[in-house]
Amino acid sequence: MALIVQKFGGTVAGSPKRIKDIAERVIATQEMGNQVVVVISAMEGETDRLLGLARSMAAIPDGREQDALLSTGEQVSAAMLALAIKGLGYRARSWLGHQIRILTDNTFGRARIQRVSAEALRRSLKEGDIAVVAGFQGIDQQGNITTLGRGGSDTTAVALAAALKASVCEIYTQVDGIYTADPKICPTARKLEYVSYEEMMEMIGLGVRALHIDAIDFAMRGHVQLHIRSGFTPWEGTRVVQEKKDSELIVSRVTPDKNQAKITITRVPDKPGIAAEIFAPLSEAGIVVDMIVQNASEIGYTDVSFTVPLDVYKKAESLIEEVKPEIKAGGINCDPEIAKVSIVGRGMRTQAGVAAKMFQVLAKEGINIEMISTSEITISVVIREKQATRAVRALHDAFFGK
Amino acid sequence: MALIVQKFGGTVAGSPKRIKDIAERVIATQEMGNQVVVVISAMEGETDRLLGLARSMAAIPDGREQDALLSTGEQVSAAMLALAIKGLGYRARSWLGHQIRILTDNTFGRARIQRVSAEALRRSLKEGDIAVVAGFQGIDQQGNITTLGRGGSDTTAVALAAALKASVCEIYTQVDGIYTADPKICPTARKLEYVSYEEMMEMIGLGVRALHIDAIDFAMRGHVQLHIRSGFTPWEGTRVVQEKKDSELIVSRVTPDKNQAKITITRVPDKPGIAAEIFAPLSEAGIVVDMIVQNASEIGYTDVSFTVPLDVYKKAESLIEEVKPEIKAGGINCDPEIAKVSIVGRGMRTQAGVAAKMFQVLAKEGINIEMISTSEITISVVIREKQATRAVRALHDAFFGK
Repeated sequence: MALIVQKFGGTVAGSPKRIKDIAERVIATQEMGNQVVVVISAMEGETDRLLGLARSMAAIPDGREQDALLSTGEQVSAAMLALAIKGLGYRARSWLGHQIRILTDNTFGRARIQRVSAEALRRSLKEGDIAVVAGFQGIDQQGNITTLGRGGSDTTAVALAAALKASVCEIYTQVDGIYTADPKICPTARKLEYVSYEEMMEMIGLGVRALHIDAIDFAMRGHVQLHIRSGFTPWEGTRVVQEKKDSELIVSRVTPDKNQAKITITRVPDKPGIAAEIFAPLSEAGIVVDMIVQNASEIGYTDVSFTVPLDVYKKAESLIEEVKPEIKAGGINCDPEIAKVSIVGRGMRTQAGVAAKMFQVLAKEGINIEMISTSEITISVVIREKQATRAVRALHDAFFGK
Repeated sequence: MALIVQKFGGTVAGSPKRIKDIAERVIATQEMGNQVVVVISAMEGETDRLLGLARSMAAIPDGREQDALLSTGEQVSAAMLALAIKGLGYRARSWLGHQIRILTDNTFGRARIQRVSAEALRRSLKEGDIAVVAGFQGIDQQGNITTLGRGGSDTTAVALAAALKASVCEIYTQVDGIYTADPKICPTARKLEYVSYEEMMEMIGLGVRALHIDAIDFAMRGHVQLHIRSGFTPWEGTRVVQEKKDSELIVSRVTPDKNQAKITITRVPDKPGIAAEIFAPLSEAGIVVDMIVQNASEIGYTDVSFTVPLDVYKKAESLIEEVKPEIKAGGINCDPEIAKVSIVGRGMRTQAGVAAKMFQVLAKEGINIEMISTSEITISVVIREKQATRAVRALHDAFFGK
């Protein structure tokens, strides 16, 4: 008998009607001979409604009390799903953080799971219950209710799967898996059967919205196989695993990011400490700098380019203007009309020539590369924003075939 | 330093705005040098909204899961009130059934409180916190969430007051106390400074809506002084106590009940077992019979009259029609146009002539008495419905002065 953890959130758990659909799906899984643990999020819009109530009480709501308030969203969904399952004549039982117990630290609003007790859940499963767990929440050492932050139900599901040594943790979403590129940009994109934990992490970092990055971390450490699949269709999705099959692709995903701006500081005297003087004020202002490239333009001088999120680039620019006299820079150029295009693939590690191939493809399309940065399993380039879609399509065709 | 329990519910806790008003009231009580425990109900309409969600999942919702769902209404209010108090710069902390802990039996939907632990709350109060307790809920021996039924927050407040040996348990309502009669019917009605537990129980039994009857029971057993007062004005209300002051009134309240119908069975052969044959089917159908009067009309025959709630009298009538052949009754008369008028007063016990005075007052008004029933501190009569208001006014003037 297999033990399966299933997580439902977002629009998949969006309304009473959807919760009844979930009840049927969960029952079908049990009927196939499995033990089933379901993790459910708040109904769509509910967390925002509760946040609104908190903010109507205090300008800066207290963390402990806000968590007690927010956790009711998942408590309502879990009770509703258990009611629906029982209403259909099956055994079910809802579980809250303090009933299981899911122990976290006491960082209200973004608590980290420290330990999950599996005993009570196991007993209940053995008696034939479907266990319905309220996601997103836990309890600290003092019995205070904590929440795990946006997307925290993913982490709840993976932590439970690890504690119960589940065969698989299924994440039901509105997409039906992970694709080689966004099908809306690249009609030839195809669904991946497998991706590795590392690739999934890189993709999430590059803006692919599939699940919470903490959940991947938990899955890696707990050796939990994830299955990202559609909540609206029965088809298989994408499995996230430690080691992929032999047939693995060198590159798994081509992905654009248009939400970046590029800032270039020209003709900076080349001496120690310059980078620190540039980036310290940005860091203090909480601005996340993504790509950084530095190269010498003439002897004794250097140019520094970097990218920042589009919505803060004006602020970043003014901070750099302030340090301009100190660093004796020649000039500052700011350019919001860029895109970052990345390819992600675990195969790059062992395969030479992936970067070269990427550059050739872009050259053939007449697309100029303005910045390059590489990590172990990712290569990113900055190009003109209006060329992004063409770049993604050309790269996709080159690495995955038309 | 006094310890005061304050309970807010209904329209008093009806909206986010009202919860902010409560925060100010509670803070003022602490500022006067008291330790304060606040018990709060769900916002107005919230419990019904949650019940609707439960019923959208299953025709007959499971008790355990429905309680997990309903309890979120009070959890939200308690967190909001704690947020509001903290937002104003004071110390506060919300408490749920499992955090305090409020142990109940496992009768979901109408659980009874068995034990309240006071230690954690006491520690928190000593540190200067205002304790904000979610009413209406507890936890059973197995850690399941239970609810206490409609009005259960009153019981939570009184049980906490007993466990903490509070000086007083203040129940904030939309009325500003208990009156000698309904001021809408009787403009000369005046607010009572004190009523006894027993009188309060009788009044609630006669339809005076002030608080949950279980709460009175808890207050009596725990020697808790109650103070029923307005949530919208600062004035003193009515205190519910064991022994009233010397100046106590013989009668405390005159109250009408128009929601009754009278059924009379005439000319029933007078033999043992008749009453059982008449009332067994009503009891089986869940119909609560209120007043019962039996008297002989001619030798060997008897007439039996009784009252039932107006909304079920048609059903009661048809049940009696069914047993009519068995009991060989002469006829059945059904009369919905009656009113029951009662006077309640602890002083009746020691004071002769109260009943006689009541009958004289009604006689003087030309009001015919159709049924009489008495208990230790209550006398009720059935009269014509359209004479009820006149009867209440005449009795009020006779017992309380104009």
